[in-house]
Amino acid sequence: MRIVVVGASGTIGKKITEALTPNHEVLRAGRNGVDVSVDLMSQESIVNMYETVGQVDAVINASGGANFKAVPDLTPELNEKGIESKLKGQINLVLLGQDYLNDGGSFTLTTGVMMDDPIPMGASAAMANGGVKAFVKTAAIEMARGIRINCVSPNIVEESWDRIGHLFAGFSPVPAERVARAYVKSVEGAQTGQNYEVY
Amino acid sequence: MRIVVVGASGTIGKKITEALTPNHEVLRAGRNGVDVSVDLMSQESIVNMYETVGQVDAVINASGGANFKAVPDLTPELNEKGIESKLKGQINLVLLGQDYLNDGGSFTLTTGVMMDDPIPMGASAAMANGGVKAFVKTAAIEMARGIRINCVSPNIVEESWDRIGHLFAGFSPVPAERVARAYVKSVEGAQTGQNYEVY
Ligand SMILES: NC(=O)c1ccc[n+]([C@@H]2O[C@H](COP(=O)([O-])OP(=O)(O)OC[C@H]3O[C@@H](n4cnc5c(N)ncnc54)[C@H](OP(=O)(O)O)[C@@H]3O)[C@@H](O)[C@H]2O)c1
Ligand SMILES: NC(=O)c1ccc[n+]([C@@H]2O[C@H](COP(=O)([O-])OP(=O)(O)OC[C@H]3O[C@@H](n4cnc5c(N)ncnc54)[C@H](OP(=O)(O)O)[C@@H]3O)[C@@H](O)[C@H]2O)c1
Repeated sequence: MRIVVVGASGTIGKKITEALTPNHEVLRAGRNGVDVSVDLMSQESIVNMYETVGQVDAVINASGGANFKAVPDLTPELNEKGIESKLKGQINLVLLGQDYLNDGGSFTLTTGVMMDDPIPMGASAAMANGGVKAFVKTAAIEMARGIRINCVSPNIVEESWDRIGHLFAGFSPVPAERVARAYVKSVEGAQTGQNYEVY
Repeated sequence: MRIVVVGASGTIGKKITEALTPNHEVLRAGRNGVDVSVDLMSQESIVNMYETVGQVDAVINASGGANFKAVPDLTPELNEKGIESKLKGQINLVLLGQDYLNDGGSFTLTTGVMMDDPIPMGASAAMANGGVKAFVKTAAIEMARGIRINCVSPNIVEESWDRIGHLFAGFSPVPAERVARAYVKSVEGAQTGQNYEVY
């Protein structure tokens, strides 16, 4: 298959790319994407990416951020990053990409464990994750031309533990390679509307 | 208690107000609110409402909309109503209202069955519902001064069946009076971080 991976250079995206490369043509995307550049915060940039790559069989996103702030210090302005990046960035990738997917193609988005197992300062990211999960579940029942849509909810990964593990007290990190397998399942499998928890 | 009900004139808000009035001072809010006016789409309007009412013990929201569109026809622009109204409107009501709540006060927001039991054209509303649910669950662990936060997820209510029941094939509508009881539980009870499903 011909597969776009947004966030291909990231901690998780690298493992997704490694897992798919032996069997597929992988187009590595990101703001500094090796094969194509895209900034999910900009609709115009998303459309440009699709115009550049043309028809594909699968679109994966492994990018998206949100501010980490305790709710008493969270302002509507600080909450905007989660809205614009992790939530709308991912949903716009789907809404604007539907016509570029071949029949039976798939979208795979990224949520995260924080929506199910709350951590301090995680409310804005959890909000975005919860929005993506519910969108995916509902969108799945009415995508055109057999297009499927899933998301993957990674636990904190071992490779990120040194950087952000202090925020995840008592969590058991998982290898990013194991998270990557859920994206493979979404792309090569036949399920739709799923949120694959890799906890 | 002194309780603000945003959306007090609505189908569900009316029943919430009826249920609380015998035992509490209820301030009815909405764009055309009887006691105070507020438009959740505007941060300035939310702040004005809080400045007008002053300190309260509970804030309930029973308002918020999203566009109903099949995903193949849903555009980023059409998705904005759900983002601005049902999602950000509710979250900003919390973020901007924290300082106006008395110690041990509560916020109660509204989600909806569509995030759990998908219906056609419901992806944008489901997205907003899912975002609110995950925000509430996470925010609950770090609200200041014993403030609690919950949401209520109503099934389609009997009173709305004639208007929108055709979108909910096979659902069993519930009386809005039963939905209202979940808001009472949230306000008068002691739980936090809950999404009360009234299905
Ligand atoms: N790491 C974890 O433990 C973990 C756990 C749960 C969930 N997640 C989620 O998984 C996703 C990936 O996490 P990660 O740790 O792998 O991230 P990461 O290492 O920071 O990598 C982010 C990737 O996304 C790209 N990117 C950043 N901003 C972008 C934008 N606006 N538009 C397009 N591409 C953009 C980056 O490349 P460029 O700089 O070239 O744009 C990079 O390839 C995130 O949504 C994260 O919240 C991560
Ligand atoms: N009805 C159902 O079966 C059902 C099922 C599940 C979930 N829900 C959810 O429950 C909530 C209430 O539904 P409903 O059917 O009771 O609604 P409704 O009858 O349409 O009433 C909406 C209420 O919200 C107020 N309102 C509207 N826009 C507002 C804004 N921008 N800022 C502040 N107030 C605003 C309206 O008063 P003004 O015109 O004065 O502003 C009115 O009081 C919605 O979030 C809905 O999605 C409803």
